[in-house]
Amino acid sequence: MAINVYFAAAAALWPEYRAALQTACAAKGLDVALSDAAPDPAAVDYMVYAPNSEVSDFTPFTRCKAVLSLWAGVERIAPNPTLTQPLCRMVDSGLTEGMVEWVTGHVLRHHLGMDAHILGQDGVWRGEIKPPLARDRRVSILGLGELGTACANALAALNFPVTGWSRTAKQIEGITCLSGDVGLTEALSRADILVTLLPRTAATENLMNAERFALMPMGSFLINPGRGPLIDDDALVAALEEGRIVHATLDVFRVEPLPPDHPFWAHPGVTVTPHVAADTRASTAAEVVAENIRRGEAGEPLLYLVDRKLGY
Amino acid sequence: MAINVYFAAAAALWPEYRAALQTACAAKGLDVALSDAAPDPAAVDYMVYAPNSEVSDFTPFTRCKAVLSLWAGVERIAPNPTLTQPLCRMVDSGLTEGMVEWVTGHVLRHHLGMDAHILGQDGVWRGEIKPPLARDRRVSILGLGELGTACANALAALNFPVTGWSRTAKQIEGITCLSGDVGLTEALSRADILVTLLPRTAATENLMNAERFALMPMGSFLINPGRGPLIDDDALVAALEEGRIVHATLDVFRVEPLPPDHPFWAHPGVTVTPHVAADTRASTAAEVVAENIRRGEAGEPLLYLVDRKLGY
Repeated sequence: MAINVYFAAAAALWPEYRAALQTACAAKGLDVALSDAAPDPAAVDYMVYAPNSEVSDFTPFTRCKAVLSLWAGVERIAPNPTLTQPLCRMVDSGLTEGMVEWVTGHVLRHHLGMDAHILGQDGVWRGEIKPPLARDRRVSILGLGELGTACANALAALNFPVTGWSRTAKQIEGITCLSGDVGLTEALSRADILVTLLPRTAATENLMNAERFALMPMGSFLINPGRGPLIDDDALVAALEEGRIVHATLDVFRVEPLPPDHPFWAHPGVTVTPHVAADTRASTAAEVVAENIRRGEAGEPLLYLVDRKLGY
Repeated sequence: MAINVYFAAAAALWPEYRAALQTACAAKGLDVALSDAAPDPAAVDYMVYAPNSEVSDFTPFTRCKAVLSLWAGVERIAPNPTLTQPLCRMVDSGLTEGMVEWVTGHVLRHHLGMDAHILGQDGVWRGEIKPPLARDRRVSILGLGELGTACANALAALNFPVTGWSRTAKQIEGITCLSGDVGLTEALSRADILVTLLPRTAATENLMNAERFALMPMGSFLINPGRGPLIDDDALVAALEEGRIVHATLDVFRVEPLPPDHPFWAHPGVTVTPHVAADTRASTAAEVVAENIRRGEAGEPLLYLVDRKLGY
C-alpha cells in the first residue's frame, strides 16, 4: 500500500516539488501517493509542511508519523499546541550553500570596502585606501548550527580569525568557540564583523539590544541573515548614529516585505536585501524529505527532529 | 664582512622596509649593511628593487649577485638590456592573500548580484530575484601562477566549478586545467565569470580582444586584477554594449591613475577600483628578500628566478 504524503505548503511550489519528491522517493524505493489537495486527514502518513499552507490545526492528522518542514526556521509552527506529531526542520544542502555564499560575499564586501568603489565611480582615484588582510579582521558569528558552522568554516578558510558563539558549548577545529553570557560578551567585544545566525526563540528575541551593541568595537559591521527579531531595530539605528556600527546589511525583518517607509531603506548605513540569503531548493530538499520518510517507515530515528522545549 | 644590500625603490618605502629587512635578515643570521643612498655600485652584493627607484642602468653593479624585485610583475625591468644579474620576482604571502580576498569578494559580488541591492535602496522589495548556487556558476581564471592558483583554489572551495588556463599545461586538484589555443577557446566559452591574472608580456598584450570576448557566454562578467594591457579597452566597451559582458570590474589600467575623463569611469557596466586588489606588505616581503640573500650566500638556487626569455 502506498505511503500517503500530503504537501501542505504554498500552491505555487507544488509543480516543482511534486516532480522533485517523486524522483527522490523513487530513488529510495518508496511507493508514495503525493497529494496537494486536502485529503482525508486521517489517511495522511507524512506531511510536507510550510507555514504558507492553509493547515493550522494538526489535530485531524491522527495517523501522521511526522511533519517535515520545508523551512529551516520552525518558530511559526513549533509553538502550535495542535502539533503533537514529530516535527523535523529542513536542513537542505542547497540552503546551506546559498547561505555560505551570501555571508562570505557580504563579509568580503565590508572587509574590502567595496561600496566606496561601487557607489563612487566619480573619476577620483582613491588608491591610498587599502584594507587590512583578512587575518587582521575578526569575525564573530552568533549561532553555530548547520548554517553558522558552515559559514564559520568558509570564513576561517579565507584566513579571517573567527569566533563562534552558541547557547551550548561546541568545539569546531579552527574556530574559537564560546558559549554562555560571558562568552557572548567576549564574542561581541572582538566582532569587527558580526554575523547573526541564531534561530528565533524567546531567548534570542532582541538579543542585539543597546547594551549588546555597546560591547562591539567602534566602527564595526553587522550582517543579519538569521531572523529579523534578533535585532532591536531602534538600538541598531542608535548604534549606527554613534558610529559604533558603520554599516549593517540586513536580509530579514520583523515584517516582510519591509515596508517602503521603514527607516532602514533610507539610512545610508543600512543595506536591505529582500530575504534572499538562502532559499530551500526543491531538488535537494526533496532528498531530505524522502530520507526522513524512509527512516520513518524503517523505524529509524528521524533526521533534524525539533526539540519542542528549545523550539529548534 | 657585512653583506651590502642596496634598497633601490621609492624613498617613501625606506623607513618601513629598513626595519622589516633588518628584522628578517637578523632572523636568518645574516650580517647585512642596508643602504638606501647611492652606494659604491661595485660594492653592492644584492639590490632590493622596484621600478619607482632612480636606478635604470644596472651596468655598474658588477658584484651584484641578484636583483630582488619588490613587485610581482617584472615587465618594466625584465626587458632592460643592462640588467644581466639574476632577477627574482616577489612572491609575497601577504600579496597572495590580499589578491585571493579581492578576487573572491568580487566574484561573489557579481555572483550574488549585490550591486542591485547596494545601488537600489529605494523601498522596493525585489525578493523574487535569487541567484543560482555557486555550483551552477562557472568561473574561468586565465593565469595559473601563484596568484591564479590561489584564487582558483579559494573559489573551488566555495563550490564554483573553476577552469584554469595557462600557457603551459598544469595540474591542480579540483580545477579543470587547460592550456594552449584550443584550451583558451574552451576556457572562455564556459566563463560565466572570467578572472584575468596573467603577467604582462608581448604574448598577453590585448589577449582579451573582440574575437576572444565573442567566445564568452552572453551575460557574463569580467574581473581584471592582473595587468591593464591584457584587455583591449575598446573591445571591452563593445562587448558591454552588446550585453556579452554585463559588468566588468577593473583594478589595473594602461595608464594609472585612470584619467578622470576615461570612459570606464562613466560606464554603468564598469567598476573601476584604484589598483587595490593586492599590495606587497613590508613584513612578509622582507622575509622573501632575506631568504633569497641567504640562498645566494649559501650557493643555493634562488626563489622565484625570472626566466628572461618568457619575461616572468
